[in-house]
Amino acid sequence: MAPTITVFERSPDRGRGLARDMPVRWALEEVGQPYDVRPVSFGAMKQPAHLGLHPFGQIPTFEHGDLALFESGSIVLHIADHHPGLWPADPNGRARAVTWMFAALSTIEPPIVERETATYAERGRPWLPEHLGLVEQRIGDRLTALSERLGDGDWLDGDFSAGDLMMVSVLRRLEGSTLLDGYPRLSAYIARGKARPAFGRAFAAQLALFTAAPEG
Amino acid sequence: MAPTITVFERSPDRGRGLARDMPVRWALEEVGQPYDVRPVSFGAMKQPAHLGLHPFGQIPTFEHGDLALFESGSIVLHIADHHPGLWPADPNGRARAVTWMFAALSTIEPPIVERETATYAERGRPWLPEHLGLVEQRIGDRLTALSERLGDGDWLDGDFSAGDLMMVSVLRRLEGSTLLDGYPRLSAYIARGKARPAFGRAFAAQLALFTAAPEG
Repeated sequence: MAPTITVFERSPDRGRGLARDMPVRWALEEVGQPYDVRPVSFGAMKQPAHLGLHPFGQIPTFEHGDLALFESGSIVLHIADHHPGLWPADPNGRARAVTWMFAALSTIEPPIVERETATYAERGRPWLPEHLGLVEQRIGDRLTALSERLGDGDWLDGDFSAGDLMMVSVLRRLEGSTLLDGYPRLSAYIARGKARPAFGRAFAAQLALFTAAPEG
Repeated sequence: MAPTITVFERSPDRGRGLARDMPVRWALEEVGQPYDVRPVSFGAMKQPAHLGLHPFGQIPTFEHGDLALFESGSIVLHIADHHPGLWPADPNGRARAVTWMFAALSTIEPPIVERETATYAERGRPWLPEHLGLVEQRIGDRLTALSERLGDGDWLDGDFSAGDLMMVSVLRRLEGSTLLDGYPRLSAYIARGKARPAFGRAFAAQLALFTAAPEG
């Protein structure tokens, strides 16, 4: 039986593939695991049935047999643990790939999300530009360090891994801003991730769902 | 040979055990794994030798044989994978405990860190109180959801796991604020974590290092 993931019934990013189901779809495509999708409305996300799966009322969730998970990082790690293709063969390489997953979600992503949150939650506040300036400085510091570590490598540590999958997913949130200007290595790294056939299939699947959704 | 972790030469929290070496020490104590500690100064953290271990120039790092890791979440996960005591016996329980680790670091912690960062980086800015108010609302929403999921349980999912270890570590950052007022279940949960002998040993070890450090 295929696992089932939940996704936005109508994604607020309008099909740009920035919702958190995208890394999960991508991981499933990388390992060749078919999956079912259950769209959830914003209203249903806050109802007891969904809160039983996801205590914070968000997407994605992952159900497979009697296992139910939430948190995209945890779901991707679970997929990588159960199918070949997302971890290096040696255990030390796997541990380092897990490190990059946490670095993506716990070091790189938080200031990026703070910037997004401020942009809508502090809209119209006179302090917003100065706040954004401070946050963008923190984002830049981390991008500089990440770019230096990546160097001229294609991926963060040897072959493509779940660590790269999460890092590219997080960095994509900066596309459309100017924050990646000046980081050609990171832009090329993102482009390499997006060029993977599995990424293309995952992106097309979420876009098709958005296109088919009723106007909301 | 015992693993070596890096820690602040002189912790900015003055021995309160809120630096990110604390969950790593706690995990090592839970599984009974002795470890060596290498204190690093703020200057040395930004030098090539340390940046080779930790590209973002922070602590902790973890070195064991020819393996070097960073990110406290990744290190705790590695310890839990290699010693009994931090995962439930069944694989599904382990996957759920990993979910709680990511929930701690990727859902609960970011607004808590945003609040801490704003408190020092925006000191003196006239907007700071209003910004803090917005952030504290987001923290409160997540604490409410977490408290409801915890319910009357001692731990988040069955017995104590690495998921609880990370969640208690993150929630401790709110001690000393009033943000935990109104969440007696979460306060009791934190107290249960702190009452564990392994927590006590880890806390004492980091405090002893702070007390012995030269005035900085």
